[in-house]
Amino acid sequence: MTPTLPTRPDVDFAARFSARAGRMSVSAIRELLKLTQRPEIISFAGGLPAPELFPLDAIRTAANTVLDRYGPAAVQYGTTEGHLPLREWIAAQTPGLTPGHVQIVTGSQQGLDLLGKILIDEGDVVLVEAPTYLGALQSFQPYGPRYVELPTDEHGIDVDALEDVLKAHPAKLLYAIPNFQNPTGRTLSLERRRRLVELTAQYGVLVLEDDPYGKLRFRGEALPNLFTLGLEHAGGDPERNHVLYSGSFSKTLVPGLRDAWVQGPHLIIEKLVQAKQGADLHTPIFNQMIITELVADVLPRQIEIVKKAYGERAQDMVGRIREHFPAGVQFTEPEGGMFLWVTLPEALDTTELFPRALERGVAYVPGRPFFALGGGANTMRLSYSSAGPEQIERGIRALAETFREAMD
Amino acid sequence: MTPTLPTRPDVDFAARFSARAGRMSVSAIRELLKLTQRPEIISFAGGLPAPELFPLDAIRTAANTVLDRYGPAAVQYGTTEGHLPLREWIAAQTPGLTPGHVQIVTGSQQGLDLLGKILIDEGDVVLVEAPTYLGALQSFQPYGPRYVELPTDEHGIDVDALEDVLKAHPAKLLYAIPNFQNPTGRTLSLERRRRLVELTAQYGVLVLEDDPYGKLRFRGEALPNLFTLGLEHAGGDPERNHVLYSGSFSKTLVPGLRDAWVQGPHLIIEKLVQAKQGADLHTPIFNQMIITELVADVLPRQIEIVKKAYGERAQDMVGRIREHFPAGVQFTEPEGGMFLWVTLPEALDTTELFPRALERGVAYVPGRPFFALGGGANTMRLSYSSAGPEQIERGIRALAETFREAMD
Repeated sequence: MTPTLPTRPDVDFAARFSARAGRMSVSAIRELLKLTQRPEIISFAGGLPAPELFPLDAIRTAANTVLDRYGPAAVQYGTTEGHLPLREWIAAQTPGLTPGHVQIVTGSQQGLDLLGKILIDEGDVVLVEAPTYLGALQSFQPYGPRYVELPTDEHGIDVDALEDVLKAHPAKLLYAIPNFQNPTGRTLSLERRRRLVELTAQYGVLVLEDDPYGKLRFRGEALPNLFTLGLEHAGGDPERNHVLYSGSFSKTLVPGLRDAWVQGPHLIIEKLVQAKQGADLHTPIFNQMIITELVADVLPRQIEIVKKAYGERAQDMVGRIREHFPAGVQFTEPEGGMFLWVTLPEALDTTELFPRALERGVAYVPGRPFFALGGGANTMRLSYSSAGPEQIERGIRALAETFREAMD
Repeated sequence: MTPTLPTRPDVDFAARFSARAGRMSVSAIRELLKLTQRPEIISFAGGLPAPELFPLDAIRTAANTVLDRYGPAAVQYGTTEGHLPLREWIAAQTPGLTPGHVQIVTGSQQGLDLLGKILIDEGDVVLVEAPTYLGALQSFQPYGPRYVELPTDEHGIDVDALEDVLKAHPAKLLYAIPNFQNPTGRTLSLERRRRLVELTAQYGVLVLEDDPYGKLRFRGEALPNLFTLGLEHAGGDPERNHVLYSGSFSKTLVPGLRDAWVQGPHLIIEKLVQAKQGADLHTPIFNQMIITELVADVLPRQIEIVKKAYGERAQDMVGRIREHFPAGVQFTEPEGGMFLWVTLPEALDTTELFPRALERGVAYVPGRPFFALGGGANTMRLSYSSAGPEQIERGIRALAETFREAMD
């Protein structure tokens, strides 16, 4: 207390918020996940990679190696574009790409935010799957997009419906997760991929392909990325490819180092560099160097380990679902990734059921927040990535009981 | 090439950019710094902390310790707010604060961006020092503020002029660096701090105090932060303090881990959490844990080491400037931090002189980009933080020769 400062401020902070801030909201999931942290709860809710599979020893060795090799440079300011050897490695995965086509970001979430920032003006039409990744909605939302939902079925986006939408709405961007989508676990078929790339090119709509799970295919054959198809469509010229690609090490290595990237034409990457300079200067260089140590040997090994585990867990969960869920409950059977999607009879509401499931010791994510325009009250996302066989057995059984009770 | 994809896209990417993207630009400094990377150049340009002082062994030990102690949790997804023990430590530095008043950010640059995002609507008046930190201008710029410059002199912001500005412009935010400002090295006097806090409270203007260098005072007495004065002014109630504070470990420990924070009232922090969720989910948890290991013992030691070194370097540079610079060249004498500010006679332009200085083997940052509204052509920023005595001697001599030639 100083006597020289007599007046007291009374700032109405909320009145100072921008219109942009007014479009932000607390993630429903975030609040809900807090309830699922109790150890006795079997949680199929969080989208957490399996921690017991993390290559901790390799990370420790890499951390020590980069401190030895780079010394202070490992913890000094770095370039906004990202650590060159990492960008070189990423570029080398796709013929025709150079490091200039790659921007390192602090988790793929940052890539979504920065792309939203440089592309979306208030009222711009953004095409999204219904349902879609709610984190993408959170990234785009502050910039005031007008969402138009694309109908999806078991093979992903319905491309016939897409053409109608493209005719009706001059869209800026189409956001899609073609591989083992979050939240549905569905995969866009090859035929539809080709048609999607063709149609969006024809209508001049940018595509943002979000692909955190692409390498985690445990069943069926790998399909070419939209980015690769876009590149073919552009005659192999990266500067004319209308598909932007968001990749990540979060699901194949570890999420907590926050290392991901965006690849696209120079013009987009150069603008992203400007956006990123203002957003966080650069992604921690130490973390990028650690990841770079791991990409050659540890990453491919790790992908095999994670695929095998998630494949077994998915098969296990699907088996238990078949065994226990009552008739009338539909579910997807993913070929990779971390999630499957459950659709209850129309009359049921998974948000209302949530406390009852929790009482039975099991948690999930209600599907509603994954729909940009509402709906999906009778849907839910289940994650099998970090669940053991006993948890899957008990959790699915508890869910089945919850459904049965509600369907009576 | 697939024959089924005959058409080629011709997307005009630039035409897809948002208005926001149109307000972003390449940092002039960034382009210029590329010229100064040659090893034969003595660079007073970059604002890099001295790498030879980094506590590398402590960082290595901390990295290994957190992997031992936390295992997979050290590289798993973390909470958006940040690692609780780190937020607790930060809160404990200011009486009355709790972890709920602290948001961890990925470098203080992210704090500036997120605060801009939640506060600044297009056309909102933001008051800035003239000159000010250009990175803040870069963070705010995409959100379309209208800058009003505050006149400054050797004691920082002229608070009499501030009152006139506050009367004339209904401002949203005042952005200031009271300690050893970037770029000038100047420190706001205690009397002016009190008056600034009082006036902004009276006029209902939020203050964002950016304080990366505050702990690095090597001369004179420490002054209370604007945040602390704001807290006093609010009767000790953090929810009514109109001063927001941006702190960082980049200048006291290392910048490459990207660990910084924002502290303020709950209402602001809660909105920041929402903004950060969309921006990058969370700051790398591994990095936050490493920093947390260092705050108790290494940080205070490191602050002493860095202060001593920068104090000697500043004194050395000021001494050489006195010795060599021609009459008519003015300069600041910082009491801490990393920078001093040089003002040449009006007729000279430091951007034009830059190639000539480079020919003589020395680099600096021309002052112009630090002014939100232009001007400052005859100014420059010199950094002494990572220069040795011989470099200072030779570099200052080379600068003096450059000035003399231009002043002839």
